[in-house]
Amino acid sequence: MTESINVKTGERSFSVQINGKEIIRHTDEAPFLYIGKGQETMEMYRGNFDIDDYVIERVPLRVHTLTETADGFQAELTDGTEPVLSVIAALEKDRFTFTFNCKRNHNRFWMRLVSHEDEKVYGGGEQLSYLNLKGRNFPLWTSEPGVGRNKSTYTTWQADVKDKAGGDYYNTNYPQPTFISSERYMAHMNTTAYADFDFSNESFHELQAWEIPESVEFTAGSTYLNLLEKVKDRFGTQPELPEWTYNGMWLGIQGGTDVVEEKLAKAERHGIQVSGVWCQDWQGKRVTSFGKRLMWNWIWNEEMYPGLDKKIWEWKEKGIRFLGYINPYVAVEGHLFKQAEENGYLALKTDGSTYVVDFGEFYCGVVDFTNPEASEWYKQVIKTNMIDFGLDGWMADFGEYLPTDVVLHNGASAHKEHNAWPIRWGNVNREAIEEAGRENDIVYFMRAGYTGIQTACPLLWGGDQSVIWERDDGLASVIPAALSAGMTGCGIHHSDIGGYTSLHGNKRDKELLLRWVEMAAFTPVMRTHEGNRPDDCFQFDGDDETLDVFGYFSRVYVHLKPYLKKLVKENAEAGIPVQRPLFLHYEADETAYDIQYQYLLGKDVLVAPVIDQGADSRELYLPEDEWVHVWSGETFTGGWVEVDAPLGKPPVFYRKQAEDASLFQAIHTLT
Amino acid sequence: MTESINVKTGERSFSVQINGKEIIRHTDEAPFLYIGKGQETMEMYRGNFDIDDYVIERVPLRVHTLTETADGFQAELTDGTEPVLSVIAALEKDRFTFTFNCKRNHNRFWMRLVSHEDEKVYGGGEQLSYLNLKGRNFPLWTSEPGVGRNKSTYTTWQADVKDKAGGDYYNTNYPQPTFISSERYMAHMNTTAYADFDFSNESFHELQAWEIPESVEFTAGSTYLNLLEKVKDRFGTQPELPEWTYNGMWLGIQGGTDVVEEKLAKAERHGIQVSGVWCQDWQGKRVTSFGKRLMWNWIWNEEMYPGLDKKIWEWKEKGIRFLGYINPYVAVEGHLFKQAEENGYLALKTDGSTYVVDFGEFYCGVVDFTNPEASEWYKQVIKTNMIDFGLDGWMADFGEYLPTDVVLHNGASAHKEHNAWPIRWGNVNREAIEEAGRENDIVYFMRAGYTGIQTACPLLWGGDQSVIWERDDGLASVIPAALSAGMTGCGIHHSDIGGYTSLHGNKRDKELLLRWVEMAAFTPVMRTHEGNRPDDCFQFDGDDETLDVFGYFSRVYVHLKPYLKKLVKENAEAGIPVQRPLFLHYEADETAYDIQYQYLLGKDVLVAPVIDQGADSRELYLPEDEWVHVWSGETFTGGWVEVDAPLGKPPVFYRKQAEDASLFQAIHTLT
Repeated sequence: MTESINVKTGERSFSVQINGKEIIRHTDEAPFLYIGKGQETMEMYRGNFDIDDYVIERVPLRVHTLTETADGFQAELTDGTEPVLSVIAALEKDRFTFTFNCKRNHNRFWMRLVSHEDEKVYGGGEQLSYLNLKGRNFPLWTSEPGVGRNKSTYTTWQADVKDKAGGDYYNTNYPQPTFISSERYMAHMNTTAYADFDFSNESFHELQAWEIPESVEFTAGSTYLNLLEKVKDRFGTQPELPEWTYNGMWLGIQGGTDVVEEKLAKAERHGIQVSGVWCQDWQGKRVTSFGKRLMWNWIWNEEMYPGLDKKIWEWKEKGIRFLGYINPYVAVEGHLFKQAEENGYLALKTDGSTYVVDFGEFYCGVVDFTNPEASEWYKQVIKTNMIDFGLDGWMADFGEYLPTDVVLHNGASAHKEHNAWPIRWGNVNREAIEEAGRENDIVYFMRAGYTGIQTACPLLWGGDQSVIWERDDGLASVIPAALSAGMTGCGIHHSDIGGYTSLHGNKRDKELLLRWVEMAAFTPVMRTHEGNRPDDCFQFDGDDETLDVFGYFSRVYVHLKPYLKKLVKENAEAGIPVQRPLFLHYEADETAYDIQYQYLLGKDVLVAPVIDQGADSRELYLPEDEWVHVWSGETFTGGWVEVDAPLGKPPVFYRKQAEDASLFQAIHTLT
Repeated sequence: MTESINVKTGERSFSVQINGKEIIRHTDEAPFLYIGKGQETMEMYRGNFDIDDYVIERVPLRVHTLTETADGFQAELTDGTEPVLSVIAALEKDRFTFTFNCKRNHNRFWMRLVSHEDEKVYGGGEQLSYLNLKGRNFPLWTSEPGVGRNKSTYTTWQADVKDKAGGDYYNTNYPQPTFISSERYMAHMNTTAYADFDFSNESFHELQAWEIPESVEFTAGSTYLNLLEKVKDRFGTQPELPEWTYNGMWLGIQGGTDVVEEKLAKAERHGIQVSGVWCQDWQGKRVTSFGKRLMWNWIWNEEMYPGLDKKIWEWKEKGIRFLGYINPYVAVEGHLFKQAEENGYLALKTDGSTYVVDFGEFYCGVVDFTNPEASEWYKQVIKTNMIDFGLDGWMADFGEYLPTDVVLHNGASAHKEHNAWPIRWGNVNREAIEEAGRENDIVYFMRAGYTGIQTACPLLWGGDQSVIWERDDGLASVIPAALSAGMTGCGIHHSDIGGYTSLHGNKRDKELLLRWVEMAAFTPVMRTHEGNRPDDCFQFDGDDETLDVFGYFSRVYVHLKPYLKKLVKENAEAGIPVQRPLFLHYEADETAYDIQYQYLLGKDVLVAPVIDQGADSRELYLPEDEWVHVWSGETFTGGWVEVDAPLGKPPVFYRKQAEDASLFQAIHTLT
């Protein structure tokens, strides 16, 4: 199959065919564009948004004039009274673009695309509940992803009632107005305004934005792999990970220098391969009703980490890198807030005073990245306080909390800057490590994203899962998260081993932690998190058995290093994600399109994590091929199978014909 | 103040002033009408509707031509392309009406009215959560009212998750597209389609309907009492209650003839004044997981009520009327279903087969009241099986469950018939008793309603409250229910003493039952209900103390008979409800407009029921007047006060200047 786009025009109609199917069709009786006016309400409470829209007008547009051009057509569209929207439609090889110019003060836009029977839709950024988006609508607005994320669960209800924080299936730190259709095309809307992609209708998709977007573009692909390469060409991609990251897991430890030493020793005794310690409280901690939080003043906390300035280099000698934590806010009590405020680096309220955001019993200023001086200053903080100090990585947390009523240095509306903020934040980090000449050796990881995060951050993490077994928030949800992010160009993903959020009676049990670590060994990066309430969460050093299991899976991970490196390189070069939905390599297999709790690790390994509490086997789907079960050596040829999966033996298969078959075959002989 | 309506027209604009304030204003820049197209989804599960709308178009209408007429104007409105809507605006004395004629196939309609600062809005049928509707939108669609009715309560969450039945603040058995503004006008939309009155915007109201309504009308009043008289003239009103109803309470009893005898004897021993026994299981019962349900085959169940054919007359001799139960559905197992199906009296599916509705583990046919023969037949069932048998009253239950996909005899869309169904059902009952010549002696009570219920049913009851203390579902909620129904012409209301719904761990405690009976003594009718799970509910004969309290308040009620009769007469003649919001008689008192958990019983008695568990006092508001506290004799002159309110002494006051002051004064001397 070869990709193709064809444009047809009539006197008062036009259509676009992609790969032989009509995707866009306008007639004056069945218009493809609606514009109008809306008045939204957006209330933010600790990163959770309550968003409502009152649509004042929604008017179909009809052709006023239409002229063919060398590469498409130009049209003036009218609402009946006069021309209101100019459209330039241009085809360039495999990409077709509508560019818009609106003559009126409209702030709502809806575009209808034709949807075909059995069509599937993927992407939308990092989607945690659904891999195939068809059948639902997806608001695209970076925010907290929610605790529970399903209005029928008790966790969600409690989170909603107590903290307005329950969320729903579409809430995500990383949305993106881009999707991949099973008709082998990518659609992307160039906007940072609030958007909503609605795939709930049988016969059409409807793309909404709260502005007239600059443009909407369509790229045709011959295969998914071909299309993903074009996604990479369009948005860029994550670079390769530093070599050291593959040498073991990153242990998330809090509590100070002595605790780190003690836990490292324990890990070593149990054979845990460790390539980094990740101490988010390197800059101090605070305790709130939510749990253990951090100081948010980005400099070494000597009291908590005495001698770290020496230790950090000792550990590095031993092959253990030190990773820290930063986010784009500065706590009002800290010296950085003072500096920033004095220099006018913080976002303001309309009355000209500093805007402080409630992060849950403490308040912070918002570093205004639209002010180049503020960005330079923050980069300097990173370079001086973190890179020069010896940090080789960090969580670059948050990015989703830009309130919609802040006044920014560049004068832009915070409604438009909100979704762009994760990118601004990512780029501050990227430039800091580039300017330090350390882009091949330092890694930072983010949960927030939007269009552009592909080059603004080298490593995604799935955000704050609850320490539970539910589908929409917990262990299972990070699988569709990784897969959907991969479809929009972010192919390197990982998650907190064991999850993070321990609220509303949810406590992390040993089984969940063990199931998570055995999945994480088959992802690009292994990193643990103690959780927001460490005492309510079973930890990697909770008992000897757990330490041994962690030791074992860290060795599995290190064993896979050559393969993982190859996959990460493939992602950088060809845009093919490390974790892949099954249909990527089995396009003809209809069942493969609906599998969201399994993934291919590269082309040759299939992973079906155990996501049910108490299970000791799992039903899973194998596309037609020769699959060898890693633990038993049994070969399967495809279809639905149920395999034994006691703790420590997650369902993992490799292709018998794989180049690295002997590497995979050796996994079960590791001790 | 005299009521007034003035109409002004310009070349491309018009406005309507009511009582000196602009209520309607159209300019082409700020249109007052929008029409469009929508595609709704409506899913019913046991009377609970999941309703969603996809608005395809919402187009502002502008003036194409406008011509003054003798009593107003005529206008052709356009969406920009051509005239689409003809409007005739006609002023007749105190009523102004827009009549519409749409030339296109539109099915959505929005009308904007000007809202003024501090305006309050009342009515909308029977609203259980809010008396003043300003600040929220109110979908108007008859349905189950919901269990919990507040998404932040655990009851609601459980009901939602287990039964899709939690509901929300606006769900009601009796909606009506009519409201009363504090600008002293009534607005009413003539439609039975789904409607939504949105009062959430500061500066305008927006009235929505899912069709182009026949008309929208505005009636001006000089005072609320004046306006309510016009409401009565417009919609009719409930007739006076039969004389016997005032002679005591109606005891809700289930279980058969012997149980009735036994409970009546017990009631008599404790001095409970009883004017009726209400046995909903007179036609048999069935037990489901929900609780005790009924047989739904409307004829004396001889097995359960042996000798009832004789007993019913014996009891009547002793002044105790027998009341039963019926609803507009027939259970598939019964002989009536068979009769109806054979004769083509039941609503059908599109394939021509009988439509059966799931009522919770049993299934029923829907008697098709659009078929005159079916209505005649059902009237005959009522006349023969109930009236001739000796019943003097019944609960005419349900009416809200007409599915939107039934095929009806008159060919009308079930979407349009759904809201009309309670009226069709009420009228079957009304005609049955009229044809039997018993309209002055028989009473039936309904929970379902819509425009027209005023003449279709002589007595409302508040539907199935949960047996709890929550504001949105339970004891408290029947107060705004009675008051709002009164504002749209239904001035005779009562509720199940003790509430009905005992689900999700909610059990009726003695205190709730006692607080409910002491409120009910100050309403037009006192009636008890055992609840859906009698064993989980404390009953009137639960202990001697309770029996005595019931005895006492039945005597208070009977003592008030002359006053209550006068109020019921006033309602029939002048449309002034028996239970009244405080502002009805205290128009100048701004605070009075926001009081929804107190009421005036007529002009002279003020009741502030205790609605909090464990309370032994209540804070309440008295408009400026001389108010005598019934139990202590203390006189208050107005404002916020806190009074003692131990069990048995609910805060009740009378006006010192009242004509019936001595009657009220004597209450506390009753023994």
